[in-house]
Amino acid sequence: MKPEKIPYSLNSKKVADATKEWLHKRGVTIDEIAELVMLLQKKYYPDLTLEECVHNVEKVLSKREVQNAVLTGIQLDILAEQGALISPLQEMIENDESLYGVDEVLAFSIVNVYGSIGFTNYGYVDKLKPGVLERLNDKNDEPTHTFLDDIVGAIAASASSRIAHRKQAEREKALGEESVGDGSTPE
Amino acid sequence: MKPEKIPYSLNSKKVADATKEWLHKRGVTIDEIAELVMLLQKKYYPDLTLEECVHNVEKVLSKREVQNAVLTGIQLDILAEQGALISPLQEMIENDESLYGVDEVLAFSIVNVYGSIGFTNYGYVDKLKPGVLERLNDKNDEPTHTFLDDIVGAIAASASSRIAHRKQAEREKALGEESVGDGSTPE
Amino acid sequence: MKPEKIPYSLNSKKVADATKEWLHKRGVTIDEIAELVMLLQKKYYPDLTLEECVHNVEKVLSKREVQNAVLTGIQLDILAEQGALISPLQEMIENDESLYGVDEVLAFSIVNVYGSIGFTNYGYVDKLKPGVLERLNDKNDEPTHTFLDDIVGAIAASASSRIAHRKQAEREKALGEESVGDGSTPE
Amino acid sequence: MKPEKIPYSLNSKKVADATKEWLHKRGVTIDEIAELVMLLQKKYYPDLTLEECVHNVEKVLSKREVQNAVLTGIQLDILAEQGALISPLQEMIENDESLYGVDEVLAFSIVNVYGSIGFTNYGYVDKLKPGVLERLNDKNDEPTHTFLDDIVGAIAASASSRIAHRKQAEREKALGEESVGDGSTPE
Repeated sequence: MKPEKIPYSLNSKKVADATKEWLHKRGVTIDEIAELVMLLQKKYYPDLTLEECVHNVEKVLSKREVQNAVLTGIQLDILAEQGALISPLQEMIENDESLYGVDEVLAFSIVNVYGSIGFTNYGYVDKLKPGVLERLNDKNDEPTHTFLDDIVGAIAASASSRIAHRKQAEREKALGEESVGDGSTPE
Repeated sequence: MKPEKIPYSLNSKKVADATKEWLHKRGVTIDEIAELVMLLQKKYYPDLTLEECVHNVEKVLSKREVQNAVLTGIQLDILAEQGALISPLQEMIENDESLYGVDEVLAFSIVNVYGSIGFTNYGYVDKLKPGVLERLNDKNDEPTHTFLDDIVGAIAASASSRIAHRKQAEREKALGEESVGDGSTPE
Repeated sequence: MKPEKIPYSLNSKKVADATKEWLHKRGVTIDEIAELVMLLQKKYYPDLTLEECVHNVEKVLSKREVQNAVLTGIQLDILAEQGALISPLQEMIENDESLYGVDEVLAFSIVNVYGSIGFTNYGYVDKLKPGVLERLNDKNDEPTHTFLDDIVGAIAASASSRIAHRKQAEREKALGEESVGDGSTPE
Repeated sequence: MKPEKIPYSLNSKKVADATKEWLHKRGVTIDEIAELVMLLQKKYYPDLTLEECVHNVEKVLSKREVQNAVLTGIQLDILAEQGALISPLQEMIENDESLYGVDEVLAFSIVNVYGSIGFTNYGYVDKLKPGVLERLNDKNDEPTHTFLDDIVGAIAASASSRIAHRKQAEREKALGEESVGDGSTPE
């Protein structure tokens, strides 16, 4: 019925690349997210390096579920900025309405992938808005980041969960305990 | 900075009205959702009337959390239809990509409001696509309903949960047991 | 085989009463939870009274979904205290193992009932452990509260969400806007 | 303060081993779960083998978040069987009370790890109770499986999600598309 159309076929690399590209276009660097991770985790792992944090953020960003949430959230932010949404969705997103929680819902779909241990970290950074989150949350600033600030907090919380799982695996390995293999820690 | 702008103030009635209006514009009637509820619940409550189902669907639709999900999901469907989304989000939503699960994430934010007992009903109707869901899910049809079919299933599952709670309250009342008051059943 | 058994029939009042009774037995008062709510909300509503906070906590506790989570969590705490769980579940709950997140999962089933706007408040109090949460989280103390501290935080976050919805309804009423009825705010 | 106690240190292998052991003791084989996966996925992947399904179930079971849910759920089933729970939690779990949804909450913490695309499969098998789920759900049977049937359904749904992600990666590789690396698919 739509014979001339090229059959749709998902290209995972396109989705992954678009995710990184749009985070960059919206002014968020991997390093800034890694600094949030450091803030959340340095207390528990004094030897943690920024490099490790960057690596873990990149691993989180390589997950399809995360990419879907990032792209959808940024898209809604952009459309709100352009005034292109139907009313009253336009006003709610544009003003980061406190009774509109779809931004938190998307953020949580990210946190869930790394398990429930990240719930607390997400809420904590989302409330205190340290580092990059303060800038994203600045309502006087032109761009709309209603979704992006929650999403960046969720990525940082997820990377923190990933580190907690990995560090435990390292600790057990150092103790000479029999390894349970790669699958025991989140990829 | 934007001195002439009227200060933003949420009007709940506008959000509620827009929800009903957009469901209607996208071709979904309250009666069709109520029929899904009937399909899910008649086995447990043989005396259940379509009128009761309609009433419970309307109660679900009166919740802000539900309204937010409905408006956001329909908005993304419309934009995908217009080809107005960034690539590859456009292709994923347009084609109801099976690895894109943000539609399920939004649907679940609806189901959650009425508690975990609705999880199963949601999955069941979302898989079998009975009644109105078959029409919404028809890929040959012009309009894009990637979000709407999941959302309608979630509303029906939530209304089913609401009925289960209410029927229990009625049963206890009939047994002459001391009532625990309105708060024990979801409003 | 169990011929003399009285057929099972849920009595909602029993579930509601047991919830209050067990919170009390585990040393948590409604007032303490209300104080957490006050801490979270006084910034937004300077006129908020402790009485209102108490009322909202009680409304949250009247929900079946919440009661189920409270009873299940307290039960697991008690069994861990008694050393009655299978290994290594015993050790994980007894020591509030950081990679064991079922306590957060149960807490989240509470928060979800009042929608996604409570996610942030939950994480915030769960991280900072103010007031009653500090006491519950004290590992030197005899009783095990691995589940209860998260659950109490979740109840406070839910009551905060409930207040946010109610206050908006009051504000609109004061502005003379047409009411959308009781259903628009969480019961 | 408790100086004579051996300091607690989580051993991941113990948690993983206990999970497998307890599934076995409760009468559930990996093969039976794999057959559920086959039932859910053979329509989409005609070449799917039972061996692949077994492998994916094992990968799901290697996740800590999954292990925590399995052990906690089985524990509550066993205690209900023994009549060792506080009333009315005892009666609710023993009778698989329809308004008690903590079993679904635990099941969902499993499904979430593999993303939202598994929500539908979970609800579907949980409603239809095919294969092993029919046996687990048999109320005449002695053992209590209030938690276990939902948990087994969740493991099968998660393994199905894992397969969907993997098959897409294979398809893209076969098309000669540039790989996005291991991270793009769930470990």
